Amino acid sequence: MSNLSGAELPVLDSGEVAPCCPPLTERPMSAEEAERAAAMFKALGDPVRLRLFSLVASHRDGEACVCDISDVGVSQPTVSHHLKKLKDAGLLTSERRGTWVYYRVEPSVLATMGRLLVSA
Amino acid sequence: MSNLSGAELPVLDSGEVAPCCPPLTERPMSAEEAERAAAMFKALGDPVRLRLFSLVASHRDGEACVCDISDVGVSQPTVSHHLKKLKDAGLLTSERRGTWVYYRVEPSVLATMGRLLVSA
Repeated sequence: MSNLSGAELPVLDSGEVAPCCPPLTERPMSAEEAERAAAMFKALGDPVRLRLFSLVASHRDGEACVCDISDVGVSQPTVSHHLKKLKDAGLLTSERRGTWVYYRVEPSVLATMGRLLVSA
Repeated sequence: MSNLSGAELPVLDSGEVAPCCPPLTERPMSAEEAERAAAMFKALGDPVRLRLFSLVASHRDGEACVCDISDVGVSQPTVSHHLKKLKDAGLLTSERRGTWVYYRVEPSVLATMGRLLVSA
């Protein structure tokens, strides 16, 4: 279980997804690169957030709203809270359509994090 | 800068690096998978730890000791503390040789995390 007093994520400007950081095995990261990349890792460093992220990432058409999410063992406000954290970290984008806010994985961020971890 | 009162990492048994988790885009993660993978992400979710990890990962022969590490803006005890956290999370292995403990990236873990993030 999780709670609302979890990690405070440095907020990246949404949309500002500059290509960040060479593979971790290539050269030592600078302080600035590490600051940026650590925020993304931190956002996925909570089990509930990670499940939510995989739920959105693997959902039909690559997007999901809170109404699609059940079964992660936390209340809907907590789900919304964690989705917002993922969005603040630049991992999800969101769009309101009618009653619901739909979340979508930001593909460039996923690619950036993958590149970090895959040896050059 | 960082401090010692940071994240508490769930400790995985060292060496127990079972293949974990499908790509995040493939299907929703189970609670158990998320618990395990989130611990790895959390370990990299601190800028100082991430710099240290990239320093070890990119060092000559893929290993480094505290004596090789300077220039990350924290004291040597703090460096040692963060290296231990990375080890506890299963991301580094260590070996004492003479005066120094040498750290090495656990390659299977890096591959596991990379797989998680790269679309199937």
